[in-house]
Amino acid sequence: MAGNTFGKLLKLTTFGESHGEALGGILDGCPAGITLDFEFIQAEMQRRKPGQSSIVTQRKEEDEVQFLSGIFEGKTTGTPIGFIIPNNNQKSDDYSHIKDTYRPSHADYVYEQKYGIRDYRGGGRSSARETASRVVGGAIAKQIISEIKINAFVSSVGEIFIDKPYQDLDFSKIESNAVRCPDLATAEKMENYIKVIKKQGDTIGGTITCVIQNVPIGLGEPVFDKLHAELGKAMLSINAVKGFEFGSGFCGAKMKGSEHNDSYNPDGTTKSNLSGGIQGGISNGMDIYFRVAFKPVATLIQKQEVLTNQGEIIEQQGKGRHDPCVVPRAVPIVEAMAALVIADYFLLNK
Amino acid sequence: MAGNTFGKLLKLTTFGESHGEALGGILDGCPAGITLDFEFIQAEMQRRKPGQSSIVTQRKEEDEVQFLSGIFEGKTTGTPIGFIIPNNNQKSDDYSHIKDTYRPSHADYVYEQKYGIRDYRGGGRSSARETASRVVGGAIAKQIISEIKINAFVSSVGEIFIDKPYQDLDFSKIESNAVRCPDLATAEKMENYIKVIKKQGDTIGGTITCVIQNVPIGLGEPVFDKLHAELGKAMLSINAVKGFEFGSGFCGAKMKGSEHNDSYNPDGTTKSNLSGGIQGGISNGMDIYFRVAFKPVATLIQKQEVLTNQGEIIEQQGKGRHDPCVVPRAVPIVEAMAALVIADYFLLNK
Amino acid sequence: MAGNTFGKLLKLTTFGESHGEALGGILDGCPAGITLDFEFIQAEMQRRKPGQSSIVTQRKEEDEVQFLSGIFEGKTTGTPIGFIIPNNNQKSDDYSHIKDTYRPSHADYVYEQKYGIRDYRGGGRSSARETASRVVGGAIAKQIISEIKINAFVSSVGEIFIDKPYQDLDFSKIESNAVRCPDLATAEKMENYIKVIKKQGDTIGGTITCVIQNVPIGLGEPVFDKLHAELGKAMLSINAVKGFEFGSGFCGAKMKGSEHNDSYNPDGTTKSNLSGGIQGGISNGMDIYFRVAFKPVATLIQKQEVLTNQGEIIEQQGKGRHDPCVVPRAVPIVEAMAALVIADYFLLNK
Amino acid sequence: MAGNTFGKLLKLTTFGESHGEALGGILDGCPAGITLDFEFIQAEMQRRKPGQSSIVTQRKEEDEVQFLSGIFEGKTTGTPIGFIIPNNNQKSDDYSHIKDTYRPSHADYVYEQKYGIRDYRGGGRSSARETASRVVGGAIAKQIISEIKINAFVSSVGEIFIDKPYQDLDFSKIESNAVRCPDLATAEKMENYIKVIKKQGDTIGGTITCVIQNVPIGLGEPVFDKLHAELGKAMLSINAVKGFEFGSGFCGAKMKGSEHNDSYNPDGTTKSNLSGGIQGGISNGMDIYFRVAFKPVATLIQKQEVLTNQGEIIEQQGKGRHDPCVVPRAVPIVEAMAALVIADYFLLNK
Repeated sequence: MAGNTFGKLLKLTTFGESHGEALGGILDGCPAGITLDFEFIQAEMQRRKPGQSSIVTQRKEEDEVQFLSGIFEGKTTGTPIGFIIPNNNQKSDDYSHIKDTYRPSHADYVYEQKYGIRDYRGGGRSSARETASRVVGGAIAKQIISEIKINAFVSSVGEIFIDKPYQDLDFSKIESNAVRCPDLATAEKMENYIKVIKKQGDTIGGTITCVIQNVPIGLGEPVFDKLHAELGKAMLSINAVKGFEFGSGFCGAKMKGSEHNDSYNPDGTTKSNLSGGIQGGISNGMDIYFRVAFKPVATLIQKQEVLTNQGEIIEQQGKGRHDPCVVPRAVPIVEAMAALVIADYFLLNK
Repeated sequence: MAGNTFGKLLKLTTFGESHGEALGGILDGCPAGITLDFEFIQAEMQRRKPGQSSIVTQRKEEDEVQFLSGIFEGKTTGTPIGFIIPNNNQKSDDYSHIKDTYRPSHADYVYEQKYGIRDYRGGGRSSARETASRVVGGAIAKQIISEIKINAFVSSVGEIFIDKPYQDLDFSKIESNAVRCPDLATAEKMENYIKVIKKQGDTIGGTITCVIQNVPIGLGEPVFDKLHAELGKAMLSINAVKGFEFGSGFCGAKMKGSEHNDSYNPDGTTKSNLSGGIQGGISNGMDIYFRVAFKPVATLIQKQEVLTNQGEIIEQQGKGRHDPCVVPRAVPIVEAMAALVIADYFLLNK
Repeated sequence: MAGNTFGKLLKLTTFGESHGEALGGILDGCPAGITLDFEFIQAEMQRRKPGQSSIVTQRKEEDEVQFLSGIFEGKTTGTPIGFIIPNNNQKSDDYSHIKDTYRPSHADYVYEQKYGIRDYRGGGRSSARETASRVVGGAIAKQIISEIKINAFVSSVGEIFIDKPYQDLDFSKIESNAVRCPDLATAEKMENYIKVIKKQGDTIGGTITCVIQNVPIGLGEPVFDKLHAELGKAMLSINAVKGFEFGSGFCGAKMKGSEHNDSYNPDGTTKSNLSGGIQGGISNGMDIYFRVAFKPVATLIQKQEVLTNQGEIIEQQGKGRHDPCVVPRAVPIVEAMAALVIADYFLLNK
Repeated sequence: MAGNTFGKLLKLTTFGESHGEALGGILDGCPAGITLDFEFIQAEMQRRKPGQSSIVTQRKEEDEVQFLSGIFEGKTTGTPIGFIIPNNNQKSDDYSHIKDTYRPSHADYVYEQKYGIRDYRGGGRSSARETASRVVGGAIAKQIISEIKINAFVSSVGEIFIDKPYQDLDFSKIESNAVRCPDLATAEKMENYIKVIKKQGDTIGGTITCVIQNVPIGLGEPVFDKLHAELGKAMLSINAVKGFEFGSGFCGAKMKGSEHNDSYNPDGTTKSNLSGGIQGGISNGMDIYFRVAFKPVATLIQKQEVLTNQGEIIEQQGKGRHDPCVVPRAVPIVEAMAALVIADYFLLNK
């Protein structure tokens, strides 16, 4: 129970089902005196919103954040920041077809088993819509650590991937295309591929790479709350995530120590950075970078077998909105969770 | 600060440096009335111990656990279980060569930067010796959830890997060989390769796969404390871990939804299990399985450049004990952390 | 930072300033499947509301709770319950007179010192209006532990006090009078006294006694989270509270052991109950009872010296709403916090 | 479960039964670089120890603290400080007489009901011996906040009390007498009274007053973690405590606002200090003072009725060690818990 709070000193608690009155949250522990950039917050919300381009779902969500407390004359006051994001269209859809059925690889079945009841409208609490509140928290967190730069981007879709180290990429290109891939040639391939997937009524997975730059040395709290452990938890808490690796990651497991060790420069920086900016669970001032794997979304516009609450298997035609590839939309969510973790450890380290 | 506690209802707090008087911990929240199997606990410690075979370090560690509280007439009493593991050889080694230097890809530098001081003897708190306390906690956790089966094994060393699904493996073979690989042909290759690495004074990374069976439905606390998110954090908190994936993992990111979705059987089980036993952050009763990536250990028996606390780069010959591949020894640690997570969520779900 | 969450498994996080858009909160960890009585919740809000009788402030507050999540078809779903209470009159008052001054025994000065900024309108976060969110949480908590009976009442105002043990009182009379004192003769004296105080533009303190009946044996988590320790913290977190005692309380400090010990009956109940239903931090099944001391409210309708932010002492005429005695209104708040504590430990003990 | 940790950034977790191998704990979150005064720590232990004077129990406890980690070359390293306090005499006493009986107003009955099992030797975990670990933590906490002065003393025993404000007392006299009362005339009366009580085989309660001076402005985290709320919880977690009041306390509940408000001086200090150094849950820089009520200890050297685990009431002669008044020995425990709270909030406020 009570798994809806994230963070230690900077705590984000969220609430909200996809088709309830509103989503929202409370960000507690935000330092006082920060002049918030509300346009930036709303712009971050816009990045997460569905229906932004031809490749993604066409559902209109307004996603307008209303701040209710913790801010006075434009500045944070140190008291908890309460906010809500009204669900404008919560009654428009028809969910009767999923009321009595459990869709494959959705959370329908486990929610009903665990709680004995579920809000079946659009996935309820397990909907990706829940992440809207995370983006609000992350957009404020970014302003707490304004000198630290966090950039996430889509590094692969299906089998298509960027074949370059992140250092060779121009992060300013991330938002220039619908798939949020800074390598434009790869972006085009991804976009075309997603259009094919969409026509098939199918979905496709992908990965996001996140790079955090200008991190102070010393963030992280061994032995259990190592910086990368908390980053990993943060990422794995995002819907559809199946894996997390930082620095050399799974490739590092194939390497020898003589290849993997990062030699020091006299100033304490390292020549290579297979460590991914974290050693012994503590940031060493080098770039932190990690990669997050997203499975394909479970909602298909195809016929699929579903389980009924009477224990029958029936065939059902998928309908409703359709995200052939949720990965581009997850980019601001990855950044938001990274910002929350880094800001929290930044405050812990003060 | 204060990052040395793991868990919510079942809390393990640990202390101890590799060369202090003793390591130890407190397991708080263990249910009362469990008749503990102390031989099992000591056997688990034995599995973690260095010096078990020709391929690993020869340092002798006794690793004898002494329980100080929380147990009466062989049973847990519901009060905190305090325990220590004395460091018998803590004064025998000579660490003067690392006192003023920071070894590449060790935590020396970041500890000194963060805390302004470090216990330089053998890595201090950042030593893998710290995990001995985790194994104690995990060995008790396993007894809390005695009907749930947790099996971890080495699934790859360097480029050598088991080329079979875990369902085709015989877990009873895991402890039959020095590398803890249940596929004996692969085990032999791994063992031979590690011997080569050892001769080179080098080290090699690898992966561990963990399978958790007979898990009740309903474990996991969305949205932030999803079961796999906490498992991920637990694994990433282990020394040298660079990545975590569960179910389809990073491969899932290359798949289509129509391939990835796990169709239901009428009884709620699923035909495939790409979900890895967890949907929406909640266990669905199918096997939970995940994979953990370990980088090669940083301590080499080779000449390496190190940074001095005067800001100079000097060459230093690595010496002391040498683990060419720490992955086999990490198997019981992976199991211990998995047991702690599962037991905690088990108690939360009651 | 981040001190706006209360509870372990049942967590209430609140936000809101007295003159912001809205107050509200998130109750996380509420078990699923409880059919909520919304009229009861609103009735509890009504009890806390100012302007209920001639003796208290005349400000109109609507205090209408809007639930935004966690409830589906009238039942709790196990997901977090988000709620808001709009501040309807937030712009009507004039607070310019306190913008640059710190009123004696208010939190103005310390908030400004701690945070460097404060929402000076009506006390901001330090206003008793904050407790509205607690009452919502408590009203739900009462429904989680519906078999446990919690009754609080005003046991003294100034020097006037009920001169009877609580066993001789009829709790059904508590709500029959404006001061919430079940002893009607004492109630009348209190009421008359408060009217005198009101005419003087002064305020008066008092105490609340709370009795919790039908508590299961075994609630409480030694050694730090003893049941009475958490009850004490809960009460001390309410505005204007200066003291807490349970069972024999401060009187017990004058007694001998031979007088104080509660002898057992064969069924495990005790003949006397100076322990106050808690022994060693764990409920023993007897009535839990405790007393809470409230200081007089600091806002007077009198001339008082105030400190300016320029470091000058000036005289200022108190104005605005005026609660001559906040104690009757605090009765539902005491009950709410007690309910939150008991429900939390009830869930922990399952 | 898991109620054996205290604190947020500075976390003390303790373990140990009165007659187990050892007591001990882990202090996590202690800042690095503090040169610890070990003689001071041992002297604090000595203050808590039984058998210090003719008025108290004669049991010999060595109470020697052994530090096992977190300290290197005399300085804290920022890693968790593990420590044990061996129980030297754990096998010498005969507890067969209480094995099957529940003594009145002890925790025997509730422990057995809650856990289904108890370590009946000397009270087990519910023994006051548990507080030894708190004194270790507190002695280190005092060194974290070395500029803040914490003085506790016995302010009443039974009906005998100090009839002076604390400002008129000389704290250097506290340790000059067996009852730890700085008013020597009152101390003598208390001491004589306790001797009478001892002869009767009876026990007597009392109160401790604690004064914290030189506190920085700004400690405390509203709304739930107000400074006095956490102080209250800390005190109420000590064995035998029945009440807590700070500043004007229960007397404040009898006062008018015009009497109770603390007028400011131009420098932000206040002329009076009925607030007790805390306003709105935040320290205002004035002295913090509070009072703690202790009931008489339940162990009498008299015949008493006890309950057997067969549901019979039998008469039993109390024996074993006998503390006629535990209050003097509780003085260092009150100080230790106060130090832990203040140090924690001090670190939170940095």
